[in-house]
Amino acid sequence: MKIELITIGDEILLGHTLDTNSNWIASRLSECGFHLRWISVVADNVSDMRHQLRRAWNRADVVLVTGGLGPTHDDITRPVIADFFKDELIARADLAEWIHDRFAQRGLKPPPGYELMSEFPSRAVPILNEHGCAPGIHYSLDDRELIAMPGVPTEMHGMLIETVLPLLESRREGHYRFTVLKTAGAGESFLSEKIGDPNALEPVHLAYLPSIDHGVTVRLSLSGSDLQEVDNTLKKAEESIRDRIGEFIYATGSTILEEVILNLLVEKKMRLALAESCTGGLVTSRIVSVPGSSEALERAFVTYSNKSKIEVLGIDEEILIDNGAVSSETAVAMAEGARQRADVDIAVSVTGIAGPTGGTDEKPVGLVYIAIADKRGTSVNRFRFGGGRDANRRRAAHTALVMLWQRLKDD
Amino acid sequence: MKIELITIGDEILLGHTLDTNSNWIASRLSECGFHLRWISVVADNVSDMRHQLRRAWNRADVVLVTGGLGPTHDDITRPVIADFFKDELIARADLAEWIHDRFAQRGLKPPPGYELMSEFPSRAVPILNEHGCAPGIHYSLDDRELIAMPGVPTEMHGMLIETVLPLLESRREGHYRFTVLKTAGAGESFLSEKIGDPNALEPVHLAYLPSIDHGVTVRLSLSGSDLQEVDNTLKKAEESIRDRIGEFIYATGSTILEEVILNLLVEKKMRLALAESCTGGLVTSRIVSVPGSSEALERAFVTYSNKSKIEVLGIDEEILIDNGAVSSETAVAMAEGARQRADVDIAVSVTGIAGPTGGTDEKPVGLVYIAIADKRGTSVNRFRFGGGRDANRRRAAHTALVMLWQRLKDD
Repeated sequence: MKIELITIGDEILLGHTLDTNSNWIASRLSECGFHLRWISVVADNVSDMRHQLRRAWNRADVVLVTGGLGPTHDDITRPVIADFFKDELIARADLAEWIHDRFAQRGLKPPPGYELMSEFPSRAVPILNEHGCAPGIHYSLDDRELIAMPGVPTEMHGMLIETVLPLLESRREGHYRFTVLKTAGAGESFLSEKIGDPNALEPVHLAYLPSIDHGVTVRLSLSGSDLQEVDNTLKKAEESIRDRIGEFIYATGSTILEEVILNLLVEKKMRLALAESCTGGLVTSRIVSVPGSSEALERAFVTYSNKSKIEVLGIDEEILIDNGAVSSETAVAMAEGARQRADVDIAVSVTGIAGPTGGTDEKPVGLVYIAIADKRGTSVNRFRFGGGRDANRRRAAHTALVMLWQRLKDD
Repeated sequence: MKIELITIGDEILLGHTLDTNSNWIASRLSECGFHLRWISVVADNVSDMRHQLRRAWNRADVVLVTGGLGPTHDDITRPVIADFFKDELIARADLAEWIHDRFAQRGLKPPPGYELMSEFPSRAVPILNEHGCAPGIHYSLDDRELIAMPGVPTEMHGMLIETVLPLLESRREGHYRFTVLKTAGAGESFLSEKIGDPNALEPVHLAYLPSIDHGVTVRLSLSGSDLQEVDNTLKKAEESIRDRIGEFIYATGSTILEEVILNLLVEKKMRLALAESCTGGLVTSRIVSVPGSSEALERAFVTYSNKSKIEVLGIDEEILIDNGAVSSETAVAMAEGARQRADVDIAVSVTGIAGPTGGTDEKPVGLVYIAIADKRGTSVNRFRFGGGRDANRRRAAHTALVMLWQRLKDD
């Protein structure tokens, strides 16, 4: 099945807006075993839109369009598509009422322009969405489909999931299933060595998706005519993968490492404290991004200066003088100090040289020490990251979370 | 001048990679007064690439291509482009030597595959780049240009700036100049009311670019045949804008608010401490993202629990009991406590309800208090943000930086 995505919007061509919609759509489709064959971005002008629609309609089985369905004068997707199909816009009382109701729920009247959206192509089916009031447009003609969605992400998301994916599914011959295994603490090459020849998993398809912030995701997928068989084969492949790299898998699906860590802390009734230096609040910020993080996170210290390390964490000045702020001794003292001062069960510390300056031959940019202190004692690891300031800080933050997760699960 | 960008890469169509290159190119071009007319993403296959090249070459004056220039078997941009122009690849000793030198500098030999990159289209000009070893390709034919660049961002960035922009400039009739004024502390509608009718600035073009993390950027641009006149007219327009909204402008060009704040702190020899609750390290992390932040940032506290607010910041328990953790009284006590405990000149505190849970009728999700304490006393502001957890935290962090900047510049 050939699928084309047309994104309409001057703001993307001008670079004012990063086109995250295309990536989101590509990812959702890909997860379900569908693949975008083409993505095209065209301007808000009739001629460019018509040309791209013609091209897409000629080469694709399914054409997805985003953008230009709103109420302002540069939203011309509705009339251009109708015109392309030699269709006409007709006033639809049901859509007018629906749009009216959407505003009435908030005690408002539709502003001028909004009512125009109830003028709809006569041969298309409207797609309604609770997240907005611009109806999507669905043409089904000559065994091909065109679906136009608003460019506002929340409105588009609902339509893609509720309408586009089921439509694609209905056109699929056979069944498709996938499993996502999220790993931390091992690189892509290490995992691929452990897993071995991916062809041995045939007919299951294996993919590695590495991310600087979230570790390597291992994705297994399979298509087939017999759903039961597809499920069983996939299950077996998953088991075989788990046998080989199970210790690195922290979640399946969309769960993130921060959630796993918070669940473990809550489950074990453990309170957490953090002492960050070079990461400067990044580890804490990632944990706080999860709703309910206050159940486990007691406090965090960003002890950037030596003075703060001494005063806030109670580190012996001798340790800093003898070993420097970036050292295993300081990392250990930071974690232990944080644990003691915050009176918590477990504490994590990070100290390092993020760069671009501050490195020496002995202690180069990218050198990071991470320590964890709990009732069993304190462990510390040394890392040498090789990126710029931003990458070094992100890698250090991710690694601190990985170490914390490993400590908690092995507890 | 019609410019088309073709991005080559399965990883974008599969949703594995967010296409930030297109946005980066669109932004740089746009800043210089050039506009992308089309963006197309095609797969790493000969037929799709040929089709898109033909289409682009027929409709555009300048065709930019990214991706597929590397040394692996799926990097087929070089032979496909040569074939498209009915050209042939020839072995170029100079390129082989250049590639060899690139590796020799690091004491390495080029791995297999890399030497193949010295086979280059006979009628094209190579574009060399110090950030990588894949030569870019430049065809100039029939008053049209095609430039193919690697997909690796750092390699592409250099080629765009050093080769593509000057080439576009050489094709431009007349001159183009722009000025970027970065504002904080005022919304787009407020600024546009202050500035008034944009037509009054004609022929200068005015645009507002709002960002949740960086405030509203006001952009002035102008084209013309006489460079002196363009510069003068733009200068006058900038002065007129500064007369109206000068107090909100924190920088011109690419400088970020964090840098402005750090420069002010260093200039005034002031040390900074932070006490964050709902933002959970986000303000600190933004400040630490600037190299050299240790010159002014003394330390930060993420005092998530009430206990930590009392112990770490020395807040009177009565204040928390009487007013709650999210209150102007607590924000003030946090800022004053941070300033005193860290023994610094100025301290900023943030406390609020990021959501999605934890809100009440009296204290709804999105309620945030931000306080600043310095030698002149303590000020506190109340905000009501209306987004999700992530947006609320980002808005609160940005607003804290805005308040800090305002306090420092008025000092």
